[in-house]
Amino acid sequence: MKLHFTSDYMEGAAPEILRKISEINLNKHSGYGTDEICENAGNLIRKTAKAPDADVFFVSGGTQANAIVIDSVLRPYQGVIAATTGHVSGHEAGAIEYGGHKVLTIPQKDGKISAEEVEKCVEGYRQDENHDHMVMPGMVYISQPTEYGTLYSAEELKKLSEVCHRYDVPLYMDGARLAYALTKECRVNDVDLPLIAECTDVFTIGGTKCGALFGEAIVIPKSGFIPHLFTMIKQHGALLAKGFLMGAEYEVFFRDDLYLRIGDSALIFANRIREALDKKGYRQVVASPTNQIFVELTNEEYESLSEKVDMGFWEKPDDTHTVVRLATSFATEEKDVDALISILEENK
Amino acid sequence: MKLHFTSDYMEGAAPEILRKISEINLNKHSGYGTDEICENAGNLIRKTAKAPDADVFFVSGGTQANAIVIDSVLRPYQGVIAATTGHVSGHEAGAIEYGGHKVLTIPQKDGKISAEEVEKCVEGYRQDENHDHMVMPGMVYISQPTEYGTLYSAEELKKLSEVCHRYDVPLYMDGARLAYALTKECRVNDVDLPLIAECTDVFTIGGTKCGALFGEAIVIPKSGFIPHLFTMIKQHGALLAKGFLMGAEYEVFFRDDLYLRIGDSALIFANRIREALDKKGYRQVVASPTNQIFVELTNEEYESLSEKVDMGFWEKPDDTHTVVRLATSFATEEKDVDALISILEENK
Amino acid sequence: MKLHFTSDYMEGAAPEILRKISEINLNKHSGYGTDEICENAGNLIRKTAKAPDADVFFVSGGTQANAIVIDSVLRPYQGVIAATTGHVSGHEAGAIEYGGHKVLTIPQKDGKISAEEVEKCVEGYRQDENHDHMVMPGMVYISQPTEYGTLYSAEELKKLSEVCHRYDVPLYMDGARLAYALTKECRVNDVDLPLIAECTDVFTIGGTKCGALFGEAIVIPKSGFIPHLFTMIKQHGALLAKGFLMGAEYEVFFRDDLYLRIGDSALIFANRIREALDKKGYRQVVASPTNQIFVELTNEEYESLSEKVDMGFWEKPDDTHTVVRLATSFATEEKDVDALISILEENK
Amino acid sequence: MKLHFTSDYMEGAAPEILRKISEINLNKHSGYGTDEICENAGNLIRKTAKAPDADVFFVSGGTQANAIVIDSVLRPYQGVIAATTGHVSGHEAGAIEYGGHKVLTIPQKDGKISAEEVEKCVEGYRQDENHDHMVMPGMVYISQPTEYGTLYSAEELKKLSEVCHRYDVPLYMDGARLAYALTKECRVNDVDLPLIAECTDVFTIGGTKCGALFGEAIVIPKSGFIPHLFTMIKQHGALLAKGFLMGAEYEVFFRDDLYLRIGDSALIFANRIREALDKKGYRQVVASPTNQIFVELTNEEYESLSEKVDMGFWEKPDDTHTVVRLATSFATEEKDVDALISILEENK
Repeated sequence: MKLHFTSDYMEGAAPEILRKISEINLNKHSGYGTDEICENAGNLIRKTAKAPDADVFFVSGGTQANAIVIDSVLRPYQGVIAATTGHVSGHEAGAIEYGGHKVLTIPQKDGKISAEEVEKCVEGYRQDENHDHMVMPGMVYISQPTEYGTLYSAEELKKLSEVCHRYDVPLYMDGARLAYALTKECRVNDVDLPLIAECTDVFTIGGTKCGALFGEAIVIPKSGFIPHLFTMIKQHGALLAKGFLMGAEYEVFFRDDLYLRIGDSALIFANRIREALDKKGYRQVVASPTNQIFVELTNEEYESLSEKVDMGFWEKPDDTHTVVRLATSFATEEKDVDALISILEENK
Repeated sequence: MKLHFTSDYMEGAAPEILRKISEINLNKHSGYGTDEICENAGNLIRKTAKAPDADVFFVSGGTQANAIVIDSVLRPYQGVIAATTGHVSGHEAGAIEYGGHKVLTIPQKDGKISAEEVEKCVEGYRQDENHDHMVMPGMVYISQPTEYGTLYSAEELKKLSEVCHRYDVPLYMDGARLAYALTKECRVNDVDLPLIAECTDVFTIGGTKCGALFGEAIVIPKSGFIPHLFTMIKQHGALLAKGFLMGAEYEVFFRDDLYLRIGDSALIFANRIREALDKKGYRQVVASPTNQIFVELTNEEYESLSEKVDMGFWEKPDDTHTVVRLATSFATEEKDVDALISILEENK
Repeated sequence: MKLHFTSDYMEGAAPEILRKISEINLNKHSGYGTDEICENAGNLIRKTAKAPDADVFFVSGGTQANAIVIDSVLRPYQGVIAATTGHVSGHEAGAIEYGGHKVLTIPQKDGKISAEEVEKCVEGYRQDENHDHMVMPGMVYISQPTEYGTLYSAEELKKLSEVCHRYDVPLYMDGARLAYALTKECRVNDVDLPLIAECTDVFTIGGTKCGALFGEAIVIPKSGFIPHLFTMIKQHGALLAKGFLMGAEYEVFFRDDLYLRIGDSALIFANRIREALDKKGYRQVVASPTNQIFVELTNEEYESLSEKVDMGFWEKPDDTHTVVRLATSFATEEKDVDALISILEENK
Repeated sequence: MKLHFTSDYMEGAAPEILRKISEINLNKHSGYGTDEICENAGNLIRKTAKAPDADVFFVSGGTQANAIVIDSVLRPYQGVIAATTGHVSGHEAGAIEYGGHKVLTIPQKDGKISAEEVEKCVEGYRQDENHDHMVMPGMVYISQPTEYGTLYSAEELKKLSEVCHRYDVPLYMDGARLAYALTKECRVNDVDLPLIAECTDVFTIGGTKCGALFGEAIVIPKSGFIPHLFTMIKQHGALLAKGFLMGAEYEVFFRDDLYLRIGDSALIFANRIREALDKKGYRQVVASPTNQIFVELTNEEYESLSEKVDMGFWEKPDDTHTVVRLATSFATEEKDVDALISILEENK
């Protein structure tokens, strides 16, 4: 039987979540997230993020969350600054452009953009004599962890925030995999929810890839920053009739810090795999400290490994190598990690 | 304690569905609906609808399904014909216009449009000397049951289909509450899934309002009629990473005809409430044969009833009356129906 | 040879305009309307409209002007209120929807909407329990003259303005044929440019249908009301490289009150035709006081007349009648009007 | 008095064009380009391009033409491939994204893209395992001359055409400055209109920058390739009521080969300026063979020159240099060229 390390969305939900949903299943709730459970979940998020006035909304997916936030914040003549590798740039099938906005890509390093590059982009626009004929930078999109599993440090985040607010360009953080950054097992991380709430204008707390059945929380630290977001969510087809289900998921996530803990085992296992790879001399193309591991294989290694392990194909850097992604999740089991490490050791 | 007859999306899922999700919760599935469960669910739908070549996709909500289908079928110079009361016309926050398309409203009766009105609209466009300056009718949207709970008969549906195909205007049926039409307890209904598959170009089989946690199945009887729908779903932010969850729901729905049966108790209870209303002389503003009941109350009746029963406010036809909606669902309980009927009887 | 009363855009420009363009033809101007002529033209408009701070932009067409203004003022969750007969509702090929916005049609009388109907629409939205699922009225569109040649009186306009501003819904007036209202020969008119500037948030002064080669002036009485409109104009493809041409047209229009005078002969002729029609008992379907005349003909009259006169087909109110539009313009000649009147007299 | 070499759209129209418009000014024409002059102009274009079945439409501007063509050809899940320097990429204020489409930028050299890079982009998409989550390349945009004044050779164009059609990706050529390529004075050019008609699916013949008051011709060699383009033009607000004006311009352009000749003097002068620059050792940053000249100046040279000559600022390659654009047009005069050359000689 094959091992599966393809992604962090292969399984359903953390057992605590499924239990909660079963408990409330036959209760009566008001529709579209106007129920008490969503209210509670919002309060828990506000408390954890130390953002007592924050607006909190739940939507069913990450691409949706990005499209809605960007489309709601930008004016028609504005675009969103993002890394060339940003999820919004390449892998959302043109969802941002569908909403009428350009993605203004800037250079990245390991999936991250710098305050300097953002400043250069905004200044470049301002100083261009023809900027009235160009798309105005109206927002900055970052992800934490990034698409490469890397993390902004507190210092980097503060600098980005400073530049953004100096230029009056809102900062948006996509936290689709935020649990894997917040876990205490991710030792390099020094960015917590309160800092995120302080530094950004909007951020999401990802559910789907962090042990929920589905759902992302959109958090707006300063209440009212996006007027009529409820209607925008509806217009984008993202308003779930049974919104209380997402409320229940996030209530469980934040009632007992499950969200902050959910990455623990995922990270412990990811770290073990990373060590095993290092020991055997596999090259990790990015120094990701979270639940995703990017490793370069020779084509032979790739073929041999593929027979036993399902992995995510990432890219072909040259004709003789293949980069794959290995991901752990809340549901990763120790025996599978042991088996993977044995195979990796044999394979080298 | 108050009774709740507000809507059919107050509770979670039919117990069979929740059980199934728990069973597969920790299995590994490929992402975005490319898994075997979705494949099985699709096959069951194809078999039930006698549409062996149909394309089947799952998306998370009804507004989304409508926007995606309409946006994928129409060309930019086309609009969608719909009843003035159609869900796409008034209650989707402009989701169709957000996609760039006009809703071309035509007169309705009890929520239904006729083949004659469709023909009149299309002919009106064709014969208008300035039609090159106008939005071309490019699709017809109907819902079954309609927003008023009413149903198209087999004859009406065939006529609509004939007109649509004579004019090369695809016919799309929104089946958000289809279960309540298909149940054998809905005795006036003579339209089954195979007939729908025969008469329409696209239709949906609603999950959210029919006992699923969430999800709608988009069915395209003639495979390939909408190319690249997968990418369009992604672009609209409607592609669920854990698509297998919706596959599981629909597998349960169609493995043992649960979907065809799920409306049974809802309809038995709705029919009982209708009879009680009739007996007491309450006026039902529309002769709905499905799970929604629209009843006109004097303002006094409305106030008094509201203290004991949560209902859906529908409209104020005049200063002294209020129309409310009562809805049953898979989760409606006999004791609540008994209590409601007692209250209704006392209230008159 | 046939007579032509089809429209007011059959000919080129008023001779004064063509002369001006010839004079400046080989001068050097800066591009995109940033030249001195445009500045002068703007100043003349500001002066005539007694709106010293107004922003003035020139775009090449009326549909464009409407789409740009509406798209720039509305937020994505808003739509524009318009008469069912409004140009934006039916005859702009979905240009407003292409920009993502719904046209919220309300009842009209002779092409006009009332303050009462606007209030009813906005209040209806506000009081609807589900208004968060609906498109918010975000702007009111009117035309002066309307599509039926009728005019809002000063009192009607003030009332509309009052309602709009009470509800914080901007009022936009499409003045594609404004010259035919402003001419002193249009005796019922009591609305001048300063009143329009006082009552509306945006209005246009039409060129194309009033004796310019092409071009519409967008006037925003309160400077800055629409930020970055220049870029929006560019984005809509409406920014003419040789913007100075439109500047030149409007400079001529407003240097010597040509615009206010241009409708004189058109109206004198239209009034003569109207009298002749009345005398012979032709029914005018709308009491238009401007340069458009809408007259009902029997089918026989229509056929016979059509052999000698090109008219605009308007509609078929029933099987035995046809409504046509006769339009005069700056270029209408006395001999043609005499000939038309003779034919109309013989034809009855 | 200052010299002006800023752009090719500072003046009005070639005298022949203005004369023609004056001649037909008071004639009666049918509206929206349905008149005989437009028909004649179309026929002349068809004949010159040896494309007897071509569809020909006139629209008022270049950004508009690009947006309409791209929006009409692409399906919602597709984007347009363009050079990073393509006009649609950076200087149309997001007009393509406003229509819902992504611009897929690929590397360029002197403003040109190669068949190889197009193939790489399309193959990259096809071979990407996740391409269903990505924007599909649906069209290739090139400009002739490019934004840098450079030209595709016949061989390069044929290769591009071959790749595009092998992959079923239509090829679109923006000919906003085509006259300056087609003139016999542009000696390196070996691409004529018939070859363009053979190699592309859509192309434009620019008017605005080539001596017309305004207007671009959209030519579709294979009739019917873009259905309902008329309505799309209207929807984009680009349908001029007095379309016959553009017909008249293009009739003059192509009746006596004026269009093919109009670049003659512009090129003779541009070539003289280029020689003078070379002789004095000024660096031209791109080897443009058309009417635009891109020259690198030291900041001192730039400042000194700016006092006497209006030029187009292009970019600052480093702190001590400035690149400017000098453009000639149909209206450039010999005495101004002589004066410019003297100044350039003195300045070095």
